[in-house]
Amino acid sequence: MSFSLTDPAVASLLGLSVREAKRGVRGANPLVGAVIADASGQVVATGHHRGAGTPHAEADALSNLAAAQELAARRQNEQTPLDPALANPGPLDPATLTMLVTLEPCNHTGRTGPCSHAIVESGIGRVVYAVPDATDRASGGAAHLVVNGVEVIAGESISEQWVAESGALNARWFRAQREARPFTSLHLAQTLDANIAAVDGTSQWITGDASRQHSHGIRARVDAIIVGTGTILADNPQLTARDAGGELAPRQPLRVAMGHRDVPDTARIRGTGSFEQFHTHDPREVLSELKARGVDHAMIEGGSSIATAFLAADLVDEIWLYQAPKFLGRGRSALDDLGITSLSQALELELDDVDGPAVRQLGNDVLLHLTPRHEDK
Amino acid sequence: MSFSLTDPAVASLLGLSVREAKRGVRGANPLVGAVIADASGQVVATGHHRGAGTPHAEADALSNLAAAQELAARRQNEQTPLDPALANPGPLDPATLTMLVTLEPCNHTGRTGPCSHAIVESGIGRVVYAVPDATDRASGGAAHLVVNGVEVIAGESISEQWVAESGALNARWFRAQREARPFTSLHLAQTLDANIAAVDGTSQWITGDASRQHSHGIRARVDAIIVGTGTILADNPQLTARDAGGELAPRQPLRVAMGHRDVPDTARIRGTGSFEQFHTHDPREVLSELKARGVDHAMIEGGSSIATAFLAADLVDEIWLYQAPKFLGRGRSALDDLGITSLSQALELELDDVDGPAVRQLGNDVLLHLTPRHEDK
Ligand SMILES: NC(=O)c1ccc[n+]([C@@H]2O[C@H](COP(=O)([O-])OP(=O)(O)OC[C@H]3O[C@@H](n4cnc5c(N)ncnc54)[C@H](OP(=O)(O)O)[C@@H]3O)[C@@H](O)[C@H]2O)c1
Ligand SMILES: NC(=O)c1ccc[n+]([C@@H]2O[C@H](COP(=O)([O-])OP(=O)(O)OC[C@H]3O[C@@H](n4cnc5c(N)ncnc54)[C@H](OP(=O)(O)O)[C@@H]3O)[C@@H](O)[C@H]2O)c1
Repeated sequence: MSFSLTDPAVASLLGLSVREAKRGVRGANPLVGAVIADASGQVVATGHHRGAGTPHAEADALSNLAAAQELAARRQNEQTPLDPALANPGPLDPATLTMLVTLEPCNHTGRTGPCSHAIVESGIGRVVYAVPDATDRASGGAAHLVVNGVEVIAGESISEQWVAESGALNARWFRAQREARPFTSLHLAQTLDANIAAVDGTSQWITGDASRQHSHGIRARVDAIIVGTGTILADNPQLTARDAGGELAPRQPLRVAMGHRDVPDTARIRGTGSFEQFHTHDPREVLSELKARGVDHAMIEGGSSIATAFLAADLVDEIWLYQAPKFLGRGRSALDDLGITSLSQALELELDDVDGPAVRQLGNDVLLHLTPRHEDK
Repeated sequence: MSFSLTDPAVASLLGLSVREAKRGVRGANPLVGAVIADASGQVVATGHHRGAGTPHAEADALSNLAAAQELAARRQNEQTPLDPALANPGPLDPATLTMLVTLEPCNHTGRTGPCSHAIVESGIGRVVYAVPDATDRASGGAAHLVVNGVEVIAGESISEQWVAESGALNARWFRAQREARPFTSLHLAQTLDANIAAVDGTSQWITGDASRQHSHGIRARVDAIIVGTGTILADNPQLTARDAGGELAPRQPLRVAMGHRDVPDTARIRGTGSFEQFHTHDPREVLSELKARGVDHAMIEGGSSIATAFLAADLVDEIWLYQAPKFLGRGRSALDDLGITSLSQALELELDDVDGPAVRQLGNDVLLHLTPRHEDK
């Protein structure tokens, strides 16, 4: 007998699964959180997905469960309490356990094995998931569980709020999948009056070390970095991912230039690693081409024409906005014309508390993490 | 015998006095924090100044000390412990107490009585202060203490850091005094791409309720609100201080228009309370005139021409920057030309943790509290 899913206490398990998901990072893969509860509804393990190439949330929770069980077994062997009632309870019977997960377990062998198989092997008796996964990676995850005797319950019957929250987490990710394009992260480093360069073109460095280090962390996570020819000709950036000591990260993203003017042979962007230029102004075309080359996560590094083009086409999935505490007055604005003339048409954003607080101080700078407002709201 | 001021433990008392000062608000009066320690160096009371018309930090600390003493006396009467060693120690001998205060105690009767007199009356034996007060309000505060038998020690001999931090707190306030002008707070409510209105002029409301309520709190604190004729003609604002329910605050600031065009007779700014127009473009002239009319704290509410004029003249002492999570692309920029052409000339700001955290979420908005960077740094 396991706890009833209609018990009001279940709400805290559902909330925990969403908070777990938010510990992950946005990018190539969806955000997923998992909670394993025992027969009485107590949490025995949690897990989340940390990004492409790392274990899925379900696998993470299962390995945390195994570690907890091992520790309990070791304690049991070491202790012989006088009162047997105080004895450490033996290993949990997996059949009495429930896994609550924000996304339907996958049934797909990518960089990691299929979660549906791992769950069946673990012997877990019941799985509750919030959002069905309509992408290839899932197809048949829930079905595989059912066929193998796992009780599977869809989230709608438990909590609409949980389904909505779990879905909202990945609304932009699902959209990127539907549109067959990479997930995109926009990087903007600006003054508090939203300039990304001074009148004379100077822009290095607007933000401080801590901000630049943070953005190198994002570079190291993505498959490609996109910049306009304007930025290349103005700043001649390297666009490599480097650590605090200036060392190159082991994995370097593809460097992508966008625009008609040819990037000079001597441009630094042609250095370390791969480089590609797309002679187009169409952001959608660039993203499709990149997806075809296996890019699942792209970072848009600017300048303002490129940032504006992606925002205007609604092709930005998350924004890292680094703000330096200074004013320039006149300068190169972060954004150009978005086709918006009235306040009611503003491009609405939401503070995003995934992967750390949405608003944080970074040295003397302020970092905001944002996503375009979810349409359903 | 009192504790030695060269004891390393004194550093924590000094740090506490600065933290106390930061609990106050910037404006008509300086920020001041006070700590009262007993003979062994234990904190027995703290105090800070909460703004014009409220007790000074020293008086606040003395009244907190009196309350603590009264409580201790009551406890002593109520309890008859078996072990007399556990008995509550009787009232403290004031002569054994040390007051550490970030600014020289005043010797001036304003809206409150002189602190130097209150300290003498309290019988406190020793006073250590960080920064001498060169303004009228002080003149002779330390001298009055010495003449009346209080041991007075200047901060330099104790800790340069303490003197520097205590001084930095009020650097802009002292400058406003020297320049015989009100202390100024700039209010800016903008999108994340630093627009304060859309292309068609719509600007109500960029920010949310929580931001607007916060800025009404600042309005209720100042003596005058300054806006340009442009804002009056575009928005016809009331510029009253209202509470969350829309009720007028008991004290309303003087409403000030700046510019050559006449403000129409029907303009709402002419409503409730006093109104004045200055037919000038010179911010320094407006501030001098206001100071002569008894204005010690003025809020600059915009629009961009006015904000730019005060910033360019280095006449902004603190900034409340309300940021709404939206982009407009093109629009009315928060600031115009500051005469800055290169990044190295940028107007540098500092995050200001006085009166709450420097960076905070306010509903869906982000509020930054800033001051122009202190020159000595
Ligand atoms: N602070 C930051 O985060 C940051 C980051 C990057 C750059 N920047 C600054 O931004 C400035 C450069 O901005 P920018 O706008 O001039 O350069 P940009 O956005 O990097 O490049 C603009 C160029 O890209 C091409 N392009 C491709 N697609 C386009 C489209 N959809 N719309 C318009 N142009 C398109 C056009 O060149 P073709 O004629 O070649 O087609 C255009 O001139 C520099 O001052 C740089 O320092 C700042
Ligand atoms: N979001 C916010 O926080 C906020 C706050 C206020 C206003 N706004 C928006 O700001 C816009 C108005 O901005 P604005 O710049 O047009 O108006 P403004 O700054 O309020 O007023 C500009 C006018 O003030 C006069 N003036 C006085 N001193 C001046 C100086 N030193 N330099 C230049 N002009 C001076 C000039 O008018 P004369 O010809 O009469 O001399 C000038 O045209 C409106 O769209 C309003 O909605 C937004």
